Amino acid sequence: MSSLGPGAGCDCGLVDAHTHWVPHQFPAYVGQRKSVAWPSMAPAASACDRNVMLDGRVYRTVSDASWDARRRLQEMEPSGVTHQVVSPMPELLSYWLEADDALSLTSFMNEELAALVAADPAHFTGLGAVPLQDVDLAIRELAYVVETLGFAGVEVGSNINGVPIGAPVFDPFFEACEALGAAVFVHAIRPAGMERLVGPAPLQQVIAYPGDVGLAAASVITSNLMVRRPKLRIAFSHGGGTLASLLPRLQQGWGVFPALRDSVLEAPAEQARRLFYDTLVFDTPTLRHLVARFGDTQLMVGTDHPFNFHDHTPVQRIEAAGFDADTTARLVHQNARRFLGPLPKKVTTP
Amino acid sequence: MSSLGPGAGCDCGLVDAHTHWVPHQFPAYVGQRKSVAWPSMAPAASACDRNVMLDGRVYRTVSDASWDARRRLQEMEPSGVTHQVVSPMPELLSYWLEADDALSLTSFMNEELAALVAADPAHFTGLGAVPLQDVDLAIRELAYVVETLGFAGVEVGSNINGVPIGAPVFDPFFEACEALGAAVFVHAIRPAGMERLVGPAPLQQVIAYPGDVGLAAASVITSNLMVRRPKLRIAFSHGGGTLASLLPRLQQGWGVFPALRDSVLEAPAEQARRLFYDTLVFDTPTLRHLVARFGDTQLMVGTDHPFNFHDHTPVQRIEAAGFDADTTARLVHQNARRFLGPLPKKVTTP
Repeated sequence: MSSLGPGAGCDCGLVDAHTHWVPHQFPAYVGQRKSVAWPSMAPAASACDRNVMLDGRVYRTVSDASWDARRRLQEMEPSGVTHQVVSPMPELLSYWLEADDALSLTSFMNEELAALVAADPAHFTGLGAVPLQDVDLAIRELAYVVETLGFAGVEVGSNINGVPIGAPVFDPFFEACEALGAAVFVHAIRPAGMERLVGPAPLQQVIAYPGDVGLAAASVITSNLMVRRPKLRIAFSHGGGTLASLLPRLQQGWGVFPALRDSVLEAPAEQARRLFYDTLVFDTPTLRHLVARFGDTQLMVGTDHPFNFHDHTPVQRIEAAGFDADTTARLVHQNARRFLGPLPKKVTTP
Repeated sequence: MSSLGPGAGCDCGLVDAHTHWVPHQFPAYVGQRKSVAWPSMAPAASACDRNVMLDGRVYRTVSDASWDARRRLQEMEPSGVTHQVVSPMPELLSYWLEADDALSLTSFMNEELAALVAADPAHFTGLGAVPLQDVDLAIRELAYVVETLGFAGVEVGSNINGVPIGAPVFDPFFEACEALGAAVFVHAIRPAGMERLVGPAPLQQVIAYPGDVGLAAASVITSNLMVRRPKLRIAFSHGGGTLASLLPRLQQGWGVFPALRDSVLEAPAEQARRLFYDTLVFDTPTLRHLVARFGDTQLMVGTDHPFNFHDHTPVQRIEAAGFDADTTARLVHQNARRFLGPLPKKVTTP
C-alpha cells in the first residue's frame, strides 16, 4: 500500500520531505489597502530564473524548478529522490499581512500548488499555507486544503509574527490538525537572534534559521503540545535546528527547577521522540547524533530543493552514516509516509 | 610544572573551568546617579543562603559557597574537583550600567575575588570582570586584573547590551587580551530569543542561555576573531551552547554563498577547533559529539558550581563517555591549563 497516492510505484523510493515551491507569477493585489507587502515575480539575469520581489526588493532569485514540475523531475532523478513533499517558500506564508489579504495570497498559492500535485501525484505531495495570524481563518483554510485539495497537511512558521508555534494561542489550530489528520511541517521564518549575527545576509538562513527552529521545537515541548494532542504529526525543518543542543540541558533543568517540573508534563527527552525532523544537517556525525537522540523512527530525508542552498546528495548522506537496512528504510521513506499519513480519498483536480 | 600557581599539588587533579562567585555583600552605591541598577544582597529563607537583589527583586538565591572558600572546598571534595576557575555570576557583569558605575562595581568584585584566590591559589584561579560597555576602560581593568591581581583572564558576556562578542567593536579588547596572554571565558548573559520561550522563568537559563552562547561563538567565527588574533585563548560556556548544531550548516553555507566565502577567511569547522569549550552539557552522547566535533584538545570540565543548576558529578560524566586515557587527561586538566596559560609571576595579596 502506498500512502503517496495512485501511481507512486514502489514504496521503497526516496521521499524528500522538505522541498519548496514558488509560483511563476503572482496575481496583482486587488485588496483595498495601500502599501501592502504583496509579493511579485520579476525577470532575473538568467532566463531560467526569476526574482521573488518583496517590499520592492529582490528577496531571492529562484530557478524554474520552483514552479515547473518537469524541471523538478529532471533534478530529482540524479539525486535519487522519487517523491517530493512540496511546500511554499516560507517567506510567502505572509503572516505579517492583514489576515484577509494573507488568505487571498495563500488561497492562490494553495490552488496553484494543488494543480502541480494533482497533475503528478506519484511524484508530489502538497503541504498548504494557512493564515495563522488569524487562527479561525487558518482552521477553515486547513480544512479546505486537506479535504478538498488533497494536501497531506500544511507548512507553518517556527513563529507567527514573533509568537513561537508552541504558544497556547495556536492550540485550536493543532486540535483541528489532529482531528483532520493533517501533517504539520514547521519551517524557520523571520528568526530570532538576527541582532546577534556578524556578517553577510545569508547568515539569516545559515545561522538564525536553525536557531529559530530549535526554539520552536522547545516551545512545543515546554507547552506539552504532544501531551495535549497525542495524535498530532508535527515535523521540524533542518534536523530540528538547535534542538539537539538544547534538549539535554532542558531535560536536566526539568529535573532541577520545580517550576519546570510542574509545567512540563512529560520528560522533554521523551516528548522530543514524538516529534518528526528532517535530515537536513549536511553532516554525517550530526545525522547519526540526531538519529540516536530523537529515534530512528522520527527522521526523514529533507533537501530544501530547489533552492540554491539545498542538499544535492541525500542518498550519499544516508549511506555515509552507515545505518542498518531497517534504519535506512525508515529514514528514506517509512518515516515520511508515517508523517504524511494516508492521503484523503477525495482529491480535486483544479 | 603546574600553571595553576604554587601549591597546586599534582597536575592530574580535576580542573573545573566554569564556577561562579557572588560576594557576601555589595558596597552601597556612592555614585551621583539616581535609579541605578546596583546589586545588593539580602537575607534568604535559609541562613546559609542569601538573595541577590537586582532592580528591587530577588534575582537569584545563592548559597554560602558563592563567597566562602571553605564551603567551596567542602563541596568540591566529594565531586572530585581539585581546582576551580572562579568568575563572577554573569548578571553582575552589569554592562547596562554607565561605564564608570560599572567600573566601580567590577573593581570591587575583582578585589574581593582576588582575595579569595590569593588566600588559596592551590585551589582557585580567578577570572575578572571588566566594563566592556566602554572598551578603553575594559582594557585598563583587564591589564589591572591580570598584571596586578594575578587573574588568568576575564569572564565576558556572550553579548554586550545586545552586541555579540564577535562584533568588530571589541577587537581592541581582544588585541589586549592576546597581548597580555589573558584567557577569555564567554558566558551567556541577557540572551536573545526570550520572546520565543513558552513556560516559566528558568527557561531563560535552560534554553535561551545556550542559544546565546551558540550565536556568540558563531559571531566569533564569522568575524574571523581567531584569524585576526591567533594567539587568543577564548572559551565558551555550556559546551558552546547551540554551536554544535549550527556549525555543520555554517560550514556548508560557507561553501555555497559567495558573500560568506568572501567574508569568512577560514573554514568555520576549522575555526571552531581553535576555540575552547566547557563540558557542561549534562549528556554523554552530546559530550562525545562535542569532543568529535571540536577536538579533544578544546574541551575542559565545567560545572556551574555553586549554583543550584550545576553538574554534581563531573568525574562520572567524563568516565561515562568512555574516552581513552589521553583524552580524559586532556578534558580533566590539560586543556584547562592550556586555556588558562601560565599565571603571571607578580600576584598581589590584597
